[in-house]
Amino acid sequence: MYEKFRFLTSGESHGKCLTAIIDGLPSGLEIDTNYINSELQRRQQGYGRGGRMQIEFDTAEISSGVRFGKTIGSPVTLVIYNKDYENWNKIMSTKPEDMTEEKSFTAYRPGHADYAGSIKYNHKDLRNVLERSSARKTAIEVAVGAVAKLLLKKYNIECSSKILQIGNGKNEIEFHQEIDKAKEAGDTLGGKFEVTFKNLPVGLGSYVHWDRCLDGRIAQAVMSIPAIKSVSIGDGEHAAEITGKNFHDEIFIENGKVVRKTNHAGGIEGGMTNGEDLTVRAIMKPIPTLKTPLNTVDSCTMEETEAHFERSDTCAVEACSVVAESRIACVLANEILMKFPTDYFE
Amino acid sequence: MYEKFRFLTSGESHGKCLTAIIDGLPSGLEIDTNYINSELQRRQQGYGRGGRMQIEFDTAEISSGVRFGKTIGSPVTLVIYNKDYENWNKIMSTKPEDMTEEKSFTAYRPGHADYAGSIKYNHKDLRNVLERSSARKTAIEVAVGAVAKLLLKKYNIECSSKILQIGNGKNEIEFHQEIDKAKEAGDTLGGKFEVTFKNLPVGLGSYVHWDRCLDGRIAQAVMSIPAIKSVSIGDGEHAAEITGKNFHDEIFIENGKVVRKTNHAGGIEGGMTNGEDLTVRAIMKPIPTLKTPLNTVDSCTMEETEAHFERSDTCAVEACSVVAESRIACVLANEILMKFPTDYFE
Amino acid sequence: MYEKFRFLTSGESHGKCLTAIIDGLPSGLEIDTNYINSELQRRQQGYGRGGRMQIEFDTAEISSGVRFGKTIGSPVTLVIYNKDYENWNKIMSTKPEDMTEEKSFTAYRPGHADYAGSIKYNHKDLRNVLERSSARKTAIEVAVGAVAKLLLKKYNIECSSKILQIGNGKNEIEFHQEIDKAKEAGDTLGGKFEVTFKNLPVGLGSYVHWDRCLDGRIAQAVMSIPAIKSVSIGDGEHAAEITGKNFHDEIFIENGKVVRKTNHAGGIEGGMTNGEDLTVRAIMKPIPTLKTPLNTVDSCTMEETEAHFERSDTCAVEACSVVAESRIACVLANEILMKFPTDYFE
Amino acid sequence: MYEKFRFLTSGESHGKCLTAIIDGLPSGLEIDTNYINSELQRRQQGYGRGGRMQIEFDTAEISSGVRFGKTIGSPVTLVIYNKDYENWNKIMSTKPEDMTEEKSFTAYRPGHADYAGSIKYNHKDLRNVLERSSARKTAIEVAVGAVAKLLLKKYNIECSSKILQIGNGKNEIEFHQEIDKAKEAGDTLGGKFEVTFKNLPVGLGSYVHWDRCLDGRIAQAVMSIPAIKSVSIGDGEHAAEITGKNFHDEIFIENGKVVRKTNHAGGIEGGMTNGEDLTVRAIMKPIPTLKTPLNTVDSCTMEETEAHFERSDTCAVEACSVVAESRIACVLANEILMKFPTDYFE
Repeated sequence: MYEKFRFLTSGESHGKCLTAIIDGLPSGLEIDTNYINSELQRRQQGYGRGGRMQIEFDTAEISSGVRFGKTIGSPVTLVIYNKDYENWNKIMSTKPEDMTEEKSFTAYRPGHADYAGSIKYNHKDLRNVLERSSARKTAIEVAVGAVAKLLLKKYNIECSSKILQIGNGKNEIEFHQEIDKAKEAGDTLGGKFEVTFKNLPVGLGSYVHWDRCLDGRIAQAVMSIPAIKSVSIGDGEHAAEITGKNFHDEIFIENGKVVRKTNHAGGIEGGMTNGEDLTVRAIMKPIPTLKTPLNTVDSCTMEETEAHFERSDTCAVEACSVVAESRIACVLANEILMKFPTDYFE
Repeated sequence: MYEKFRFLTSGESHGKCLTAIIDGLPSGLEIDTNYINSELQRRQQGYGRGGRMQIEFDTAEISSGVRFGKTIGSPVTLVIYNKDYENWNKIMSTKPEDMTEEKSFTAYRPGHADYAGSIKYNHKDLRNVLERSSARKTAIEVAVGAVAKLLLKKYNIECSSKILQIGNGKNEIEFHQEIDKAKEAGDTLGGKFEVTFKNLPVGLGSYVHWDRCLDGRIAQAVMSIPAIKSVSIGDGEHAAEITGKNFHDEIFIENGKVVRKTNHAGGIEGGMTNGEDLTVRAIMKPIPTLKTPLNTVDSCTMEETEAHFERSDTCAVEACSVVAESRIACVLANEILMKFPTDYFE
Repeated sequence: MYEKFRFLTSGESHGKCLTAIIDGLPSGLEIDTNYINSELQRRQQGYGRGGRMQIEFDTAEISSGVRFGKTIGSPVTLVIYNKDYENWNKIMSTKPEDMTEEKSFTAYRPGHADYAGSIKYNHKDLRNVLERSSARKTAIEVAVGAVAKLLLKKYNIECSSKILQIGNGKNEIEFHQEIDKAKEAGDTLGGKFEVTFKNLPVGLGSYVHWDRCLDGRIAQAVMSIPAIKSVSIGDGEHAAEITGKNFHDEIFIENGKVVRKTNHAGGIEGGMTNGEDLTVRAIMKPIPTLKTPLNTVDSCTMEETEAHFERSDTCAVEACSVVAESRIACVLANEILMKFPTDYFE
Repeated sequence: MYEKFRFLTSGESHGKCLTAIIDGLPSGLEIDTNYINSELQRRQQGYGRGGRMQIEFDTAEISSGVRFGKTIGSPVTLVIYNKDYENWNKIMSTKPEDMTEEKSFTAYRPGHADYAGSIKYNHKDLRNVLERSSARKTAIEVAVGAVAKLLLKKYNIECSSKILQIGNGKNEIEFHQEIDKAKEAGDTLGGKFEVTFKNLPVGLGSYVHWDRCLDGRIAQAVMSIPAIKSVSIGDGEHAAEITGKNFHDEIFIENGKVVRKTNHAGGIEGGMTNGEDLTVRAIMKPIPTLKTPLNTVDSCTMEETEAHFERSDTCAVEACSVVAESRIACVLANEILMKFPTDYFE
């Protein structure tokens, strides 16, 4: 948990709502709910999304910590209500008397949390794992990330992301082709994307202790996103092949100021921002729920069977990039608050 | 900082010593100092190391927390004395009256912490940044990792690592060729390695909250190692190209037990260990200190100049893999202590 | 924030609701909502309460982490809706266009957070401080404490509290007399209470590092309750006058088991539970809002004036003791999970 | 562990040394070793101290993080070597072959950590508990506190303490009489002291979340000192008897500035500093080691016996007040760094 910008999230995929409590925001920060909702919409879009994503757009409500459009210094609570909850309120009921086997399943889905989660938490009905392991929870993380981005904007820090690869496709035309191909085959695709943050001050993070290195914190924030299996900073993925003369970003003087002509380092040297654009790349594995099911085992019968099918996205790389922006924004918001003291904005 | 296995390290590269304090170890854990020292030796070896690494082997002393070969439950202190300190005790003196410009330098070394560190901590003499940003501090981290490994061994958890790539070489013969080539050219090389942990229990880590995901914590621990620029779990680096049917590890039954035939996931699903080998790959950038210096700027004159040259390693990938083993061992030791209650070992 | 039982709370006194997210509960723990609500009722009762407390009883809703009456391992969200919110939804609106000076005030209330809070968070309207500094937030803390108590009950750990003193009264008849006297005089009263936890296992907490001492954690949890100004363990308040021969609890053997005949230590020795009842005493200052107002300064005019009057409780010691039980229960729940880590209850 | 000023300590009473690593200090802070040593001397003094305290004065060595008299931003290591170690190096040896029963004991000392600690950590030889539970470890905490005080002095924050009571004595003449009387009787005494910090800025700590309240953090820091059984802020110990009209510190204007004429609150309102002197009172129980031994049980034979006698202090209240100053200084140093974050002092 971060030192200054700390938060907890909660909520099951088909539960009543997703909630986040953020503590540590200065007072006087304008919170634009439309901006938060637009970020939530970005997460729901992207060629290759299906099913749930096309029901309705998520919207976040603020139930504490904001008065007349600005934070007041107390914890901010964000809530995204499940607009489909009425169809699930018995299945996800808190009451013992509502116990049901409806929507339950017992066949482990490979690539998901089902197997390990059912052993860890002693669940027979694997829905008890699915409901929280689902990527659905990233919706509230994007809302939290939007608040972090609003804080970063006060410091002129801007964020963007782009897809670099989907399947074997490396440009947008190829992306669509690859997705269509996979969809027809009842298969799924992962991909690679890059997130960039501009205008970061020099010296966020520190080299003095391993757990204060910014690249480490960013790597944790991104790798822990459901389905992410690889994280790189700058040209990190190629760093094995490039020799020293060609990898390191030389330093020059231009109009009395330090400039660089390359940015292989991705904006981080020695665990700190160095003034260049922060670039983070991540690779998402293909969604582990396929129309063509995978071989698995039923946890009750211990016999081989086919995996349960719940969702129908073919590819969610674009949504994932939005989540990555959010996660990194939270890390940076914490670093900004650690570096620039303020209990309030005027 | 971890919940149960927590530690702080300290020490400058040419200071009196490197120190670590580890709090949270159960009592009754046998601490084999020879084992710790053998791990320190592994870190100092590897084709392509030069200079400092061939002076003498590091050895660790235990100054608290261990009595008659076993932990007693109190914090354990590890110290690695700098065997070369007598040549540096004036230069690194704590006393104001010993202030000197000997060994000072002011030209930022690209790829190092110098630029950002000097701005962050307001240093004119960049040695004040170098001394702590140096990879030298990883020696004490390896000692801490050795203690973590001793704890993991109590649970039969074993660790190993191997180099996958150095420069463009993908086998040992090519590794040596690449290193020799680079050395002659006054250049440096990075590489890629893989760390494996076997026999992990199912269910370390959790999907319930992003910061409890094991892959995230491992990513932080490895990415924050000096010079690491990319971290992957399992076949994560290829996850964009492989489709869902081919990436996810199907589950089978054999003799009444769950087995898998593949391990693309690298032993982690849903942020938890799933019973398969944990495999982590990392890419190290080429060492940023080159015999052929890079273009840079002098922080005092603000004029262009050549970068300071301090070390002469050509390639340190093997040493880096030992550090990565240590870092991951610390993460896992914490998870083991979180999962299996014990204040003591019999 | 605690290692295993961690939570954040949020919510303003007259806001839409109070919220808590608890992460770290094992799965399979029965959550009895009636029990939570009965604890909330206890907090609202007590001779000397007035105003708000007699509107309606608080009730908590669970919006995540519980299915069919048991935890499932994911974060649990508790929400207490403000039943009076319709009268405050404009005054506490999140929207800029609803900005109003209704219910605003600018005269610092002595004994409250107003002065320091307005400077810290740059507030002109002191309501922006009052809304979160109010003891109202302890309602959701009592709900969290109820969940902690349910976990402790799985280990047969029981909790109770009693009032020792109110004003100068030391028994229940005197308590009522003192409160009536104060009420007539437009004054307020504080008091002293004791909380007891029975059946704690030996060895919760630790002496090995100052921040792991149980008495320290309990002291923090209780001292940080609004209006608490003193915390003692056992007979700590008398420990200056009693000599060593008379203070320390001697140890005896009875039927082969260790017993003690006294418990001046209050169940903690060396920062750990020692098997005896844990007894914690706390002193609450008189409520800082008096019908007879105190002299103060208006933050806008910087002229002397009388303090704003918002509530009308004369004495809230009983409610405070319920909050103290809850806070200590959270500390102990964390210690239990640290000592007996379990990811689930059968 | 604190957010910005974080540290770990280690070391057994008769081990080689006590060590502390402090991470989070800005660079450029002058570290005056003489000041640290003078604080260590203060801890060793006080009428009623005996035995160990009169061997030699402790001195602290700095082995990292300080260069030419100033911090450089990296972790600072403090070491206090045990000047008596040569008499203990076999008894406290880390080597299995040195195992000995010399200086071992098995009779639980009432009032100490022995009983709970031996059960928690599974020790037969209670020395394994005594060595770390001993108040000896507070020496290194005083060294850490000295560094914290040096940081506070940069903000003109000053600290002092005074004894209020020893036994039944309330002035210095009575203190000495009480101590002499107890010593003759083979008994021990506790006492009460007050620590004061002046010139604190308004708004350290926060009311927005219970664990950020400054009084709570101070209570934890002081209550966890060995032998402390009660902590109060301001006139907290009397807060039950004093009514609201008389307890709360009214606010006035004088020369355009806010002033108060009383300080019953002890400088904290709403969990934050309010500009008045911070006053903290603590009560120390009598030292649990008496020349006239207490009844106890031998852990091996499970038969009643007399408690082991190791030290001979009659009263250590003055030393304890120095430790309390140090502990509170660490809390405040963290708050100062949280409020006024600076990576360096010019």
